[in-house]
Amino acid sequence: MKKKKDNMRALFSPESVAVIGASDNPGKLGFHVMKSLTKGEYRGNIVPMNPRSQQIMGFKCYTGLDAFDGGIDLAIVVVPAKLVPGVFRQCTQKGVKGIVLITAGFREIEDPAGAVLHEEIAAIANNAGIPVIGPNTFGMINFHWNLNASFTPEFSLLNKGAVALVSQSGGMSHLMGFLAMRLDVGFSKIVGLGNRLNVDFSEMLEYLDEDPDTRVIALYVEGVDKPNRLISAAKQYTGRKPIIVYKTGSARVGDQASLSHTGSMAGRHEIYGGGFRQAGMLPLRGAEQLLDTAKALAGCPVPEGPGVAILSGQAGPGMAGCDICEAKDLHIVRFTEKTQATINDFLPPLALRTNPVDMGPAWYDSAAIAGIVRAVLDDGNVDATLLFMMFASANVDAVERMSDLLKDWAQKKPLISCILSPPGIWDQQVKDLENAGALVNYPTPERAAEAMANLWKYRQLQSK
Amino acid sequence: MKKKKDNMRALFSPESVAVIGASDNPGKLGFHVMKSLTKGEYRGNIVPMNPRSQQIMGFKCYTGLDAFDGGIDLAIVVVPAKLVPGVFRQCTQKGVKGIVLITAGFREIEDPAGAVLHEEIAAIANNAGIPVIGPNTFGMINFHWNLNASFTPEFSLLNKGAVALVSQSGGMSHLMGFLAMRLDVGFSKIVGLGNRLNVDFSEMLEYLDEDPDTRVIALYVEGVDKPNRLISAAKQYTGRKPIIVYKTGSARVGDQASLSHTGSMAGRHEIYGGGFRQAGMLPLRGAEQLLDTAKALAGCPVPEGPGVAILSGQAGPGMAGCDICEAKDLHIVRFTEKTQATINDFLPPLALRTNPVDMGPAWYDSAAIAGIVRAVLDDGNVDATLLFMMFASANVDAVERMSDLLKDWAQKKPLISCILSPPGIWDQQVKDLENAGALVNYPTPERAAEAMANLWKYRQLQSK
Repeated sequence: MKKKKDNMRALFSPESVAVIGASDNPGKLGFHVMKSLTKGEYRGNIVPMNPRSQQIMGFKCYTGLDAFDGGIDLAIVVVPAKLVPGVFRQCTQKGVKGIVLITAGFREIEDPAGAVLHEEIAAIANNAGIPVIGPNTFGMINFHWNLNASFTPEFSLLNKGAVALVSQSGGMSHLMGFLAMRLDVGFSKIVGLGNRLNVDFSEMLEYLDEDPDTRVIALYVEGVDKPNRLISAAKQYTGRKPIIVYKTGSARVGDQASLSHTGSMAGRHEIYGGGFRQAGMLPLRGAEQLLDTAKALAGCPVPEGPGVAILSGQAGPGMAGCDICEAKDLHIVRFTEKTQATINDFLPPLALRTNPVDMGPAWYDSAAIAGIVRAVLDDGNVDATLLFMMFASANVDAVERMSDLLKDWAQKKPLISCILSPPGIWDQQVKDLENAGALVNYPTPERAAEAMANLWKYRQLQSK
Repeated sequence: MKKKKDNMRALFSPESVAVIGASDNPGKLGFHVMKSLTKGEYRGNIVPMNPRSQQIMGFKCYTGLDAFDGGIDLAIVVVPAKLVPGVFRQCTQKGVKGIVLITAGFREIEDPAGAVLHEEIAAIANNAGIPVIGPNTFGMINFHWNLNASFTPEFSLLNKGAVALVSQSGGMSHLMGFLAMRLDVGFSKIVGLGNRLNVDFSEMLEYLDEDPDTRVIALYVEGVDKPNRLISAAKQYTGRKPIIVYKTGSARVGDQASLSHTGSMAGRHEIYGGGFRQAGMLPLRGAEQLLDTAKALAGCPVPEGPGVAILSGQAGPGMAGCDICEAKDLHIVRFTEKTQATINDFLPPLALRTNPVDMGPAWYDSAAIAGIVRAVLDDGNVDATLLFMMFASANVDAVERMSDLLKDWAQKKPLISCILSPPGIWDQQVKDLENAGALVNYPTPERAAEAMANLWKYRQLQSK
């Protein structure tokens, strides 16, 4: 077990990768795996293996592991299920440290032969201390190592970042990856656990806890064979890195779906929610909410209290944010007298000058906007700030002014925004502000407020 | 009153537009209004008015309405508040049929002089039967008339479509417009009511009910002075065109915000929800949900029953959709024996062949996928279908196959999808399918399922 744990690092950061079942036929998954490695600009040794090819995508191809003289850290396996036990035996002989097993057809199939095969390869891998991602997975990506060990080269288009996504579903991993491109969420790892031969959520938590590239751990869960293992593993790491969870399978028929799909009963959603919370994990609903919250946790400090200020360039979005905050246990705080006096100086009497602040009437006065934002960020009553700005032509340079003000704002307290424009107008400035760590941006005020509420929920879990 | 109602058509579809307070100074709203008219490619007569200019953006400029010989249907007014009564008197003399009053500083300001001005101009407009959008509005856009009568030229980037958005907040109108660009929602009208001098939600419902370009009416509501007027107006039109409502102001402080912002008390959310439903209006939460539901209502027939089929290229998204459906009173139906036999023929035993169907194992077999989808669409037990497909390189042509199958699918029953890929891969094909009326697409399976649930909720309101 100790050896398997040590091998996790080599699995995710290998010096050399063999693709067993590599192919130059686009109809085969072995083709797409080779594409992923090369398009992902993996810098280690790529060694395709296929007895019927001499060369694949410019790399010399070998008949098998025994025919290759060098060492192999990671083997990506895409051969038919019945060949897998033989391949695993070769891996142990070769001293392979980790395996990504893309092949399906084990425990999840109705034919009992699948379960027999599953036990057989599990015994081989466990005896040799080899951690295995899969079977029945699209693979995994370690972004900071330029390793795309999946059958989807497009994962390499994603930004590097601090969020590790560990998922029981390939479809949901693809969904969240492509959503993340639009939301500008960056990843450290995306891991498709598949049918979890010997690497489950608990092994991943143990590994990610020590992974220096990962600051936030996001889990997509369908069924957990041994929920106590996940929950006790999470308890061990509570408070070290945020762990957030989206679990499907609350539906009656969903349970049935989960049983057939991943070979384990999903269980009732309610049973898990409480256990997750007790273990310091924040349960969330929906792929977007998981990503939104991961983005906030990766890009923001957690608020020390529930007191929120809402600054809005227009009154409507401020009200929408207000509704969410109050419904989700955040408080719209009263400003200190000093802050209120400053705001009163900047805004005319017709404006909404108490929290939420409607900055609209000062929209064309950059000094006023800057003065209001600075006073509120510095206010001792304010734990966290929401900032909403909708583009209109007449204020095309509003974000530029905000950039000047915020570029050195160190995020001592969380600042979450919805700064929205037609495509191509404010996008780059908002990205620059995000990259500078000044704020975290969302497409609607409601989602911005929801992300803030989840930061506060996580803070409350921490203090339990 | 009859005259005001008749004038609504000229207000939205004018042959000639005067911009009173036009400017060639980009620091002035009158500049941006001129840009909106010209960039929006308005085909009628554009007549700028400003005593200090000879010409603005190539159009001859007049000192005022009295100096211009031709007729004016619509006057867009952007002069300071104290000049507005004089301008309104000129409008009545000129026979202007409608006014967009962008200027702020009336009933919403603390100074009682604002309320006095408000009454003064209301009396002038009402006596002359002139409908007025505003004051304190960004304006309005009639997309099918190429009329962008707002201070934001970028609204003209939006797609023409069947959704009319009537909003009490300029900020929320801009938000929803820019979100709609990403979601591919098309509009007939976007109207910022502002402080509703004499055109309120009820007047808009009356007008939109007869507007041939509008099939779905989406309202953003903060406060309603006379909720009974809106509710009884809506009752009059129940079942003719779907009316959906997003109301903010449920928060305690939100009420205060609404009071100051639009000059009326927002009221408790709960009071309105029941009244909206009784009047056949569907209450919704959040800007995205309003747009998502509007898109579904504009692009889909409403389901005749709650029986849903879920077809997913990968099991995970199917489960996520399943959870939402069961939570929102849709039923995951049992297929007819004939449909089930067809699916069993196409999918191997290892697949999830009952509803929700995991089409994954047949992913590379276009005949099988087509056969399954067709059998389910034709199934008498199925009222509505959800279709989820996540891109992976290995199935780059999956949507093309689906396009061949669905391009003649007439949407006899609703088909809602989440077909997602990295930007640029499937986008055009999905748009083509949407434009052909084959399906309506969303960025997540959860939002697709939620939109379906809202179609069913609307269907239930109709039958009450």
